[in-house]
Amino acid sequence: MNEKINVLDNGYVRLTNVMGSDLSVVNSARVSYDKESTELDEKDIRLIKFLAREGHTSPFRHATLQFEVYAPLMVARQHWKYIVGSDHTMDAWNESSRRYVTEEPMFYIPQADEWRSAPENSKQGSGSTIDIDEGADFTEELMDFVEKGEWLYNDAISRGICAEQARLFLPAYGMYVRYYWTASLQSVTHFLNQRLAHDSQVEIQEYAKAVYSLVKPKFPISIDELTRTEV
Amino acid sequence: MNEKINVLDNGYVRLTNVMGSDLSVVNSARVSYDKESTELDEKDIRLIKFLAREGHTSPFRHATLQFEVYAPLMVARQHWKYIVGSDHTMDAWNESSRRYVTEEPMFYIPQADEWRSAPENSKQGSGSTIDIDEGADFTEELMDFVEKGEWLYNDAISRGICAEQARLFLPAYGMYVRYYWTASLQSVTHFLNQRLAHDSQVEIQEYAKAVYSLVKPKFPISIDELTRTEV
Amino acid sequence: MNEKINVLDNGYVRLTNVMGSDLSVVNSARVSYDKESTELDEKDIRLIKFLAREGHTSPFRHATLQFEVYAPLMVARQHWKYIVGSDHTMDAWNESSRRYVTEEPMFYIPQADEWRSAPENSKQGSGSTIDIDEGADFTEELMDFVEKGEWLYNDAISRGICAEQARLFLPAYGMYVRYYWTASLQSVTHFLNQRLAHDSQVEIQEYAKAVYSLVKPKFPISIDELTRTEV
Amino acid sequence: MNEKINVLDNGYVRLTNVMGSDLSVVNSARVSYDKESTELDEKDIRLIKFLAREGHTSPFRHATLQFEVYAPLMVARQHWKYIVGSDHTMDAWNESSRRYVTEEPMFYIPQADEWRSAPENSKQGSGSTIDIDEGADFTEELMDFVEKGEWLYNDAISRGICAEQARLFLPAYGMYVRYYWTASLQSVTHFLNQRLAHDSQVEIQEYAKAVYSLVKPKFPISIDELTRTEV
Repeated sequence: MNEKINVLDNGYVRLTNVMGSDLSVVNSARVSYDKESTELDEKDIRLIKFLAREGHTSPFRHATLQFEVYAPLMVARQHWKYIVGSDHTMDAWNESSRRYVTEEPMFYIPQADEWRSAPENSKQGSGSTIDIDEGADFTEELMDFVEKGEWLYNDAISRGICAEQARLFLPAYGMYVRYYWTASLQSVTHFLNQRLAHDSQVEIQEYAKAVYSLVKPKFPISIDELTRTEV
Repeated sequence: MNEKINVLDNGYVRLTNVMGSDLSVVNSARVSYDKESTELDEKDIRLIKFLAREGHTSPFRHATLQFEVYAPLMVARQHWKYIVGSDHTMDAWNESSRRYVTEEPMFYIPQADEWRSAPENSKQGSGSTIDIDEGADFTEELMDFVEKGEWLYNDAISRGICAEQARLFLPAYGMYVRYYWTASLQSVTHFLNQRLAHDSQVEIQEYAKAVYSLVKPKFPISIDELTRTEV
Repeated sequence: MNEKINVLDNGYVRLTNVMGSDLSVVNSARVSYDKESTELDEKDIRLIKFLAREGHTSPFRHATLQFEVYAPLMVARQHWKYIVGSDHTMDAWNESSRRYVTEEPMFYIPQADEWRSAPENSKQGSGSTIDIDEGADFTEELMDFVEKGEWLYNDAISRGICAEQARLFLPAYGMYVRYYWTASLQSVTHFLNQRLAHDSQVEIQEYAKAVYSLVKPKFPISIDELTRTEV
Repeated sequence: MNEKINVLDNGYVRLTNVMGSDLSVVNSARVSYDKESTELDEKDIRLIKFLAREGHTSPFRHATLQFEVYAPLMVARQHWKYIVGSDHTMDAWNESSRRYVTEEPMFYIPQADEWRSAPENSKQGSGSTIDIDEGADFTEELMDFVEKGEWLYNDAISRGICAEQARLFLPAYGMYVRYYWTASLQSVTHFLNQRLAHDSQVEIQEYAKAVYSLVKPKFPISIDELTRTEV
């Protein structure tokens, strides 16, 4: 399995593995009644709708998915916070670290037409995109600043400073990190419900949309019943 | 997938689904170094040994397995207690319930040569099997008592008592229940390490052996490195 | 701390320990804004209502409670299933076991006026209580059957059978077990929301009511906002 | 409760709440035998040693602690990764976010005598401290770079860019974040065992030492049996 969706300037989400289907959700639910289906029929679909509507979520935990994600640290960090901060713990996570990796760092740089204004009536989130000329200024400033940070980082490394301290010079919020995320279908949809919401950061919404697109063909009924959202 | 191993007089374990392999363990570990293998080689095997030996268990959490188990309630209960009592929570569980099911109950009855004596120097566990003639007495007594309980249960049901109270008449420790168990490879091996131990109850050891036999062909390297045990 | 509420004929729930308060919920939520309250005011109460209403549950996970419960195995089992079957895993559990304990077993026996009929239009649950005279019959039958089971159990023990097999003679659904349960406030209220519902078994509803009564004075605002239920 | 230990140039760890004691560990373990102690005696201490030695960790999960931590993001991130990456999930976490907070950011800047060299024979970690004069250069360079980043951040904010994008200008690895962490005693000691190890980053070792010092007076026996380490 190797389906991959590109996100932002250099990022992506890849579905690396999956266990289960809409049918296995149904069969996990039916164990209470000692019944098993071999093909998804109308009755099974009604059962999935019932389970999702009534909040009987345990059958959705018997299906699992593994993703490889390449995302700016600020996105990875929101993703982590959702997992640690929520009570949905059927998740595994392994991530690259700049304590080890010495490959060239890669950074997310918003293009001239991607900078957003502060929202009018809220402490968080963002409003409309700003004027493209002013955006071009910020893109250039950020590229210069990131370049300067990389230069200082490489200089420190070459003068013998340990990688774990040298990284203090990197503007890390935009730096790409790579991680494997394994989660139950329930946990994935909980993430989608939070991160597809309009008040979540635009950049993580893009990753959530990619996750949705990869999951949809594998669990066509369950995913829509559990997210109940227009994507 | 439908591999099934019979256990005790009427029970079984079935491996219903699996995600991942020894190779996916290796690749989850290698994300820290941005490396990926497509075929398991000697270096990968050494990595698995290193991870298991050093207790770096997170890569083993990216592989998951689903089992269907049919076991006496006293076995299911020890299985539950291990899961709730441990800190290894990447598990899903759905089980039949006598609040719903009205099918004929099925009971585990030790045969004449399967009754065990109390151990000499311990508060728990069991010693050698007892004399077969005395064993035959206990088997008959238990069959009679279970039959009496079933009769009382069916009588209560037929006289209109709700199933959730009528079941008070069932000698439930030996009654078979059916459940789906989904767990990470790490969680499965933690269960095996506890339940293959010689001081665990003989009946649950039988289930642990069946789980081991089903998992071994799917994760030939990881399972032995993580259990480090002779089965 | 030693508040205790008796439940059923021989059971109880005891609140053995607690960490946090409505105020600590508020302060855990306010860390995002680097603010801290020392006394609960109107603004704090509005914040708790907002968090509960919007499903921002993580602040409720910083408060924890420990209970000692003495309940029939069929109740303990439903309690376990909720914990293993749900995704709310911030729970610890330690329970007595008949593999070790050799003290006299204790059983739940419904009184003559406590036996309930099967519900009219449902596969689970129960309807109204049955006629008291017929109830008296069931109570007597169950007492006789339990007594017979205890006699067979004690006989097996005295003839040298190990406790872990001898218990097959006990009508275990009604047998009392003792356990410590430690859970976050979020997990406790999730349990209450499920177990105070009218379709849950009457016996576990009694335990849920006891838990509610013990928690209410410790988290007067949070508990009602999170359960939103009339008890 | 308000015990606080300062760490690094501007950070700290504060123990904000605790539930349980060595005695409650003992009593949680003894529920299997229906016994309870009211004062810790020699026999109880031997039980704790036995539980820790044999890996019977569930009784240590009935004690919980809450900390407030103020640490550079790179430390908070290692702390998160341990929690998400491990299977020890009885943890709650709430953290400040630069999507909301607009207060002045604060940064960790190593002093002239605190910069460390790359280790000789390892891909990670660090060796001895470097020459103080060269260290002074790096401290100055980092101060200048951080100042530049703050200036660009504030400029972007004042020109109307949303906070969630403006933060791309901050050298975030060294930026302080504030979080509440609630965990079982088992989870806390697992963190200590990992983070007190000599190959973990010096900066997080400092936080682990502070956590140890705050926990030690509350669980004097358990903490040393579970960490078995010289601090």
